Amino acid sequence: MKAEVFLTPAELDPASAQGAVVVVVDVVRATTTIVEALANGARAIYPTGSTEEAVRLASSLGREDTLLCGERRSVKVEGFDLGNSPAEFTREVVDGKRLVMSTTNGTAVLSRVQEAGRVVTAAFTNLGAVADALRGHPHVVVVCAGRMGRFALDDAVCAGHLLRRLGGERDMNDGARAAWALAGAMAPTVDTLAATEAGRAVTAHGFAADLEICAQVDRHALVPELTDQALVAAGA
Amino acid sequence: MKAEVFLTPAELDPASAQGAVVVVVDVVRATTTIVEALANGARAIYPTGSTEEAVRLASSLGREDTLLCGERRSVKVEGFDLGNSPAEFTREVVDGKRLVMSTTNGTAVLSRVQEAGRVVTAAFTNLGAVADALRGHPHVVVVCAGRMGRFALDDAVCAGHLLRRLGGERDMNDGARAAWALAGAMAPTVDTLAATEAGRAVTAHGFAADLEICAQVDRHALVPELTDQALVAAGA
Repeated sequence: MKAEVFLTPAELDPASAQGAVVVVVDVVRATTTIVEALANGARAIYPTGSTEEAVRLASSLGREDTLLCGERRSVKVEGFDLGNSPAEFTREVVDGKRLVMSTTNGTAVLSRVQEAGRVVTAAFTNLGAVADALRGHPHVVVVCAGRMGRFALDDAVCAGHLLRRLGGERDMNDGARAAWALAGAMAPTVDTLAATEAGRAVTAHGFAADLEICAQVDRHALVPELTDQALVAAGA
Repeated sequence: MKAEVFLTPAELDPASAQGAVVVVVDVVRATTTIVEALANGARAIYPTGSTEEAVRLASSLGREDTLLCGERRSVKVEGFDLGNSPAEFTREVVDGKRLVMSTTNGTAVLSRVQEAGRVVTAAFTNLGAVADALRGHPHVVVVCAGRMGRFALDDAVCAGHLLRRLGGERDMNDGARAAWALAGAMAPTVDTLAATEAGRAVTAHGFAADLEICAQVDRHALVPELTDQALVAAGA
């Protein structure tokens, strides 16, 4: 069994991920928000690389049951229905809706790995469900969304905890071995997340409460999986 | 005091390093080899980004007291005098010589950060000397050379041990906090290096003995510093 972790998106060579399950991680906050939205009844989430692409796609899907979601620099994009705060994605707001989502890091990566065979997303809130879905797979590739192309500690720690949940002796690349070690040093807690660059940024923008959700391990037993360019709930 | 670690070269924004001391780390093997060469009497080492640039520079410096050094895929470049194995850089071979050096990762990064104010190189073999030279500096930026643009565990662990030697409470970015934690989990030993991707690659190419040198902490009390586009021994 082979486990690779790429600590920044640029390190992934999509060709090398052929046949692998690709797991995208953006704990603070995109992949946490995605889990929350699907758990609260969103039908599908379309990740896009740019806000312009999000607006175009929302128009073509039909605006009446589609919500435009996303942030730049932690703050909701002007004119969008929702930002990237998991707390916003309640059942009242998202149940039965399609979401088109553009975030700085997480959805940009998702739109880039769509070519890979199977793509799922992981956060602490659905860690166990993702581990259950991946266990026994011969090749797992975890892509950390990072921050503006740079390393993000929250994503690396989450990748490490995911590998530990998968268990077993694995052929790991350097990124996977680092993530594994980081998970041994850092528990999935609000304090851990609050000390990261992403945690400090969302706190500075008034979203400290989001970290309480981001740190809730196994809050939902749900695996967002990319199907026809949209994330839908699999293995619920 | 601010300490930043960039786990891959692409994460460094050179503009943000203005006024900082930049430390380039490529444990297996370029920065280990650089220490070895200067400790054995090499007058100066010119890092270059490409083998073509190395050949041109060696010609313009004058070939009689200049050695062409470097590797691609761990193996000496054809027609070069030396490869990138620290064991080759003995006093008999390098004393009094100028070296022009081109390696896949380490010297490529060095040629890119020349614009920053002060640039030094670190490996386990000169860890204490570098820590002594940096202690008390308000802003330290460590750039891990990585492997082909990707994360390399040996460099990250070395960066972490360097930060721990510097000591004190520092304002650390996510990369620095990760490196610090990795250094807590991984000692600077031959076994640690042998398990990394870089360690496995040099072992596969017959250079396993190099790792014995790469893992010798404080083998030399010497700080290679970039001066007029060449690395020279400072603080010996």
